[in-house]
Amino acid sequence: MHATECRNRVAMKTSIIESKIRPREPVIIEGLPGLGSVGRIVVQEVIRSLKAKRIATLYSPQFPYYAIVDSKGLARLPRNELYHWRSKTDRKEILVITGDCQPQTSVGQYEVADIIMNYAVELSAKLMVTVGGYSSEKKDKAKVIGAATKIEIVNKLTELGVVINKSGIPVVGVSGLILGLAQPRDLAAICLLGETVGYIPDPKAAKNVLKILARLLGIDVNFEHIDRDIVRMDEIESKMRQAEDKMDLALKGSIAEKTTSYIS
Amino acid sequence: MHATECRNRVAMKTSIIESKIRPREPVIIEGLPGLGSVGRIVVQEVIRSLKAKRIATLYSPQFPYYAIVDSKGLARLPRNELYHWRSKTDRKEILVITGDCQPQTSVGQYEVADIIMNYAVELSAKLMVTVGGYSSEKKDKAKVIGAATKIEIVNKLTELGVVINKSGIPVVGVSGLILGLAQPRDLAAICLLGETVGYIPDPKAAKNVLKILARLLGIDVNFEHIDRDIVRMDEIESKMRQAEDKMDLALKGSIAEKTTSYIS
Amino acid sequence: MHATECRNRVAMKTSIIESKIRPREPVIIEGLPGLGSVGRIVVQEVIRSLKAKRIATLYSPQFPYYAIVDSKGLARLPRNELYHWRSKTDRKEILVITGDCQPQTSVGQYEVADIIMNYAVELSAKLMVTVGGYSSEKKDKAKVIGAATKIEIVNKLTELGVVINKSGIPVVGVSGLILGLAQPRDLAAICLLGETVGYIPDPKAAKNVLKILARLLGIDVNFEHIDRDIVRMDEIESKMRQAEDKMDLALKGSIAEKTTSYIS
Amino acid sequence: MHATECRNRVAMKTSIIESKIRPREPVIIEGLPGLGSVGRIVVQEVIRSLKAKRIATLYSPQFPYYAIVDSKGLARLPRNELYHWRSKTDRKEILVITGDCQPQTSVGQYEVADIIMNYAVELSAKLMVTVGGYSSEKKDKAKVIGAATKIEIVNKLTELGVVINKSGIPVVGVSGLILGLAQPRDLAAICLLGETVGYIPDPKAAKNVLKILARLLGIDVNFEHIDRDIVRMDEIESKMRQAEDKMDLALKGSIAEKTTSYIS
Repeated sequence: MHATECRNRVAMKTSIIESKIRPREPVIIEGLPGLGSVGRIVVQEVIRSLKAKRIATLYSPQFPYYAIVDSKGLARLPRNELYHWRSKTDRKEILVITGDCQPQTSVGQYEVADIIMNYAVELSAKLMVTVGGYSSEKKDKAKVIGAATKIEIVNKLTELGVVINKSGIPVVGVSGLILGLAQPRDLAAICLLGETVGYIPDPKAAKNVLKILARLLGIDVNFEHIDRDIVRMDEIESKMRQAEDKMDLALKGSIAEKTTSYIS
Repeated sequence: MHATECRNRVAMKTSIIESKIRPREPVIIEGLPGLGSVGRIVVQEVIRSLKAKRIATLYSPQFPYYAIVDSKGLARLPRNELYHWRSKTDRKEILVITGDCQPQTSVGQYEVADIIMNYAVELSAKLMVTVGGYSSEKKDKAKVIGAATKIEIVNKLTELGVVINKSGIPVVGVSGLILGLAQPRDLAAICLLGETVGYIPDPKAAKNVLKILARLLGIDVNFEHIDRDIVRMDEIESKMRQAEDKMDLALKGSIAEKTTSYIS
Repeated sequence: MHATECRNRVAMKTSIIESKIRPREPVIIEGLPGLGSVGRIVVQEVIRSLKAKRIATLYSPQFPYYAIVDSKGLARLPRNELYHWRSKTDRKEILVITGDCQPQTSVGQYEVADIIMNYAVELSAKLMVTVGGYSSEKKDKAKVIGAATKIEIVNKLTELGVVINKSGIPVVGVSGLILGLAQPRDLAAICLLGETVGYIPDPKAAKNVLKILARLLGIDVNFEHIDRDIVRMDEIESKMRQAEDKMDLALKGSIAEKTTSYIS
Repeated sequence: MHATECRNRVAMKTSIIESKIRPREPVIIEGLPGLGSVGRIVVQEVIRSLKAKRIATLYSPQFPYYAIVDSKGLARLPRNELYHWRSKTDRKEILVITGDCQPQTSVGQYEVADIIMNYAVELSAKLMVTVGGYSSEKKDKAKVIGAATKIEIVNKLTELGVVINKSGIPVVGVSGLILGLAQPRDLAAICLLGETVGYIPDPKAAKNVLKILARLLGIDVNFEHIDRDIVRMDEIESKMRQAEDKMDLALKGSIAEKTTSYIS
């Protein structure tokens, strides 16, 4: 075999594929998978309440390398999705970013967050809001922790009942990088984190964030769906606790037996 | 020593090196190393049956960093190979992609799959078919699981006896990414996965896939070779089981001895 | 949804964002987080003593992927910062590089060090000095180990009491790469490493380096602040030792108990 | 602080920095650190015997991220070095590549090997020879295993006593990639691997390779130095064995004691 040509092209880059609809000066809300799925649950309820429409898709070679196959047998790449809502009464517009996954590496995290911020600048976004979970052992009286790029916005957050963590915290992932990258672009950005134990989806923590978000943006949110999820997760958790208790008992029994056999 | 020149060139990229032969509107079948070697066995039987000829080679810095030396002492890079077949009776063409390895990183997986898809678009490929293994504990009545980019094709697959996994599955690796990358390019793509335990080459699972593939593409496949492989693997497996049973017995004996020495 | 546009931009690169002030032929001192925080403490004292002003910021996708939120709730990216001082009596200028973090990967380390060196060449830097910690078990009589790119500078260092490690050492991280990258650019560079046990911030080791640095550069350093830090760290360490001793005693007791219960 | 400029440059790439001397149609011998240091010892003896001169240096951000400081306190980057020898009697030229390290990642391995091969093509290299170690348990009668890019060269190797591994082997690292990348460039390439246990430098295995290499290239090699190294390594090994035996005895004693205390 003789080589006659060497094809060697630039491979797939992180890209946003748009439809014809383009938001104008929107508030952008980002909620991707993370601790207690808090961010993702919050934005799903926003999308549901506002009946926002999907208008764009973000693909990245920094996402996991598999196809997702749905229950009908249809395959697609892991992706982030951009949903749009335009108020019928005033010029308010919201763009919600959510999806299957976050990038897998540090460089990938910066790459995706940067693409999002460039898009935000193109759309003349008025405000970036990122939502997620904040690791905490408290199960009751879970608070909403906040951060922002400007002191005026921080003050507004505290008026709404958001707590500022006095000891300083890191906000990990795309949610954090959006705030970090907003500052040098002179974009206003806010982060709202619901305290959560975080090992299973936590709709309670999400509701705490959602209530603040609704007041902050002046949008109507329907809490019926999330309230049903809270009831359902409570049931699942209580079943898990019962199963764990049984396992503990069984384990102790088995250890007792073993110990006995060793020292008898 | 005085530096007089600084040479600094762009290093090797993922590339397809072609011969003079170019397929026209082929069906492309991809089967690379993976679970139970199912994909690779399937496409090797297709190449053997059709007497397809190697017409191109894909190299990538994302492949493992060693040379493969054959039994004659000849060295070469790990690579993927493209085999071509043209029907003598009609305009049907098939391009088979197989090889030594898959890329080693997530970004590499996207890079190689993307290069393949760009090439497919250049050739005006009619259909992409990816084949592989699907992890399962069932040894008997192993099914073929399928997925596709369009609902019409999914329906056609179920007519051929392919099973759709109702709970949704990920298809990991180049096989999955080809499906994912086919959709935004408006290319039709199918994935056929043979259920396999997967820890050793599984020609039985491969035959299940091969039968569907032959009917789907209307090609003549000779099953003699794969049937011999099935017999041979059955023998190897039964020997391995015997060896394992002996090991188990020996191990139990030795533990008994040791325990005795500890508590005597 | 129909794709009408594919946006795909080059993502954020390692960058230095400058203000209007540009140093001329400065001595550049680098001290980033590392062993015993020695490098960072040294340069913080230089900045404090000289009342140097921040004039530039270095961002990199090779830094950790989170936002840092301060006690007021303000968020920003991890970054390196460049502080500038100009003598009022002569043309002496100093540029200090410090910050939150070092790059996370080998390629990232080279990328950031290279950007710094290109900037140094642009500014016609007269000398590069990197400072850090050097792992050692000696708690008393900790020395300052040195290295440089030219034998004349090494000799000057030994005159100042700096020790040359006869068995050869690696200098890991940006501090080392700056020296390595200075040589082919024909830039003079020095590394000063304070011997430290290194598991907690070590202002003593930093003071050892700082004294050499002050004499080397002929700058006035106020040691009051670092002396207070030394006293404070001594107190913390002695408390930690007491706590450890208690833990050890408790642990021994508990082991004794357990052993007893096993063999009784 | 107001940002007035954003500097963002392409960072350091893998590069060969040349002096004024350029080899013409050389044989290129590569021997980098690896198993038993075989490759590096072989080429060091070639350089010593031929009194080859350093004419070029290869730097890469894929190398480890530290500076190497020598016993005089001079710092430099890890690097590969290119040594040149020109015969006084005929037009024979040899270029030897050795150095401190190999690249740290798979992509880095391809990058460095590719840069070397591009340089080889520029110089119209007549032959590439890579040398290294081959993992083996045999301490006596260690063989030299070989591979090449063409069957005629393989035959020539077997005439010289080189063994072809009938079961096929991988040649890992830059040594292997040079062979793999030579083939599509139509360059002749040979790999010579000395069998070695490989956990400490093995001058015996290196001498086996060196003898073949000297005959293959028709060069005069002085074996005095390597013979002294063999004697010295034998002494070190026998001391290590004695120390190990003592440790074993001590360990057995201590276990016996402990066992006693447990079961008494």
